[in-house]
Amino acid sequence: MSLSNRHRFRVYYADTDMAGIVYYANYLKWFEAGRSELLRARGVSYRALQESGFTVPVATASVRYLAPALYEDELELETIVDAVRHASFKVSYRLTRTGDGALLATGETTHACVDREGRPTRIPEGLRRSLGAEPSIEPDA
Amino acid sequence: MSLSNRHRFRVYYADTDMAGIVYYANYLKWFEAGRSELLRARGVSYRALQESGFTVPVATASVRYLAPALYEDELELETIVDAVRHASFKVSYRLTRTGDGALLATGETTHACVDREGRPTRIPEGLRRSLGAEPSIEPDA
Amino acid sequence: MSLSNRHRFRVYYADTDMAGIVYYANYLKWFEAGRSELLRARGVSYRALQESGFTVPVATASVRYLAPALYEDELELETIVDAVRHASFKVSYRLTRTGDGALLATGETTHACVDREGRPTRIPEGLRRSLGAEPSIEPDA
Amino acid sequence: MSLSNRHRFRVYYADTDMAGIVYYANYLKWFEAGRSELLRARGVSYRALQESGFTVPVATASVRYLAPALYEDELELETIVDAVRHASFKVSYRLTRTGDGALLATGETTHACVDREGRPTRIPEGLRRSLGAEPSIEPDA
Repeated sequence: MSLSNRHRFRVYYADTDMAGIVYYANYLKWFEAGRSELLRARGVSYRALQESGFTVPVATASVRYLAPALYEDELELETIVDAVRHASFKVSYRLTRTGDGALLATGETTHACVDREGRPTRIPEGLRRSLGAEPSIEPDA
Repeated sequence: MSLSNRHRFRVYYADTDMAGIVYYANYLKWFEAGRSELLRARGVSYRALQESGFTVPVATASVRYLAPALYEDELELETIVDAVRHASFKVSYRLTRTGDGALLATGETTHACVDREGRPTRIPEGLRRSLGAEPSIEPDA
Repeated sequence: MSLSNRHRFRVYYADTDMAGIVYYANYLKWFEAGRSELLRARGVSYRALQESGFTVPVATASVRYLAPALYEDELELETIVDAVRHASFKVSYRLTRTGDGALLATGETTHACVDREGRPTRIPEGLRRSLGAEPSIEPDA
Repeated sequence: MSLSNRHRFRVYYADTDMAGIVYYANYLKWFEAGRSELLRARGVSYRALQESGFTVPVATASVRYLAPALYEDELELETIVDAVRHASFKVSYRLTRTGDGALLATGETTHACVDREGRPTRIPEGLRRSLGAEPSIEPDA
């Protein structure tokens, strides 16, 4: 069973470009906000995680742009944890406009857990649980 | 009597820089969001205004940075219309952290109303009223 | 035979985040700069293209992050036109650090040509040629 | 005698907004690039400075917008060190379009030198010299 979270936000002028629509890179900012909101809804502070020596940098990111988002649109982003593995996890995204329910974009990011030295490392048990994964068989050392 | 609006939002990773705090240019993005929220709270769509042939580009902007904003902080921005003149208006900003009430930044922008050709023009009556100004003596032509 | 272009640029503070590395969404900004530089090197002004009624919005975008880019790094982006079809084209990207030649990221975008009404339309002949494609068999209507 | 530096760059789609001109917050990013280029031209690495325990966060920033910058414009930014004091310095900026020499914006930032704990501290002698200041009378402790 996958874990998901929804949050709403509004499009500002800063998000748009001269084509009159939201600039394509900004969807990745919104996906990051979605991950942040999902973790916070689960009681996880990414800041605290980072202070404890772990980060989960993005390994891959992709976006499919279906319809443009416009200034003043209210948007809803659904952020879904698709898979939690030993040292990585996968998140997917569905962005809709609340006004007409139109699906504007979908996307996916994969994340690898690394330690302070940047080495791949197993996901800490607390983060695993917050991502909705079954506890791993062996406890953390 | 001045018109003001408050809105709250959260700091994301995208807002920060390698000093571990919010990057200084992003405060201007938040000020723009404050103006957008203030107008929307007054029933004004900036998109509609623009479609009717008026824009209010920024003429000057300034920020005083008092204390750093951090990732995951919840912030509150107070946006205040300070003065509405014939063809321009002035807005000021106070950014606080909701957690401890700390004042993080203040700022000010001035805006000049221009028509489609970019010429300075009087502020449309509807926008004047929405900015909390007394009606002007002469009606719009 | 594919068409490609290289351009160099430097990483600024604005590009970084609190992890001390370049924020992941900014790679898409750089890819857009790569497309802009490639077209300009071919004598195409995207602004002029847009004024003539055509745009080539991004349909899909993906990035593979291999090693972090850091503040003050000088980077080189290779932008490669992979395929030009009737109404769409595909571009790929290779980002390296000039100092040590490390490959930092690869990516891909696909673009669909649309007219003023947002309808898919064939790529104008001038743009086709600039993207290094063989002339299409039928002339533009 | 003041120290200054010029660097050129191009406006990309990412810089623009739905008004068809460069978004107002992006001028502060360019000013930061100007400071970075000025220091680099003087042989100072801001990264190294930061690693040695000093940062020079922005205390105030202001911009006067005179004429819009447009997509594909080549711009030249002049970055001028106006004043170097004991624990702070002031920088000003002049942004012109190379095509027609039009002055598009001017601005100013002030910076306070702080140590690792965020306390105001005297500017390190090396940085003082790189900013074009006379050596201070007392040597660094």
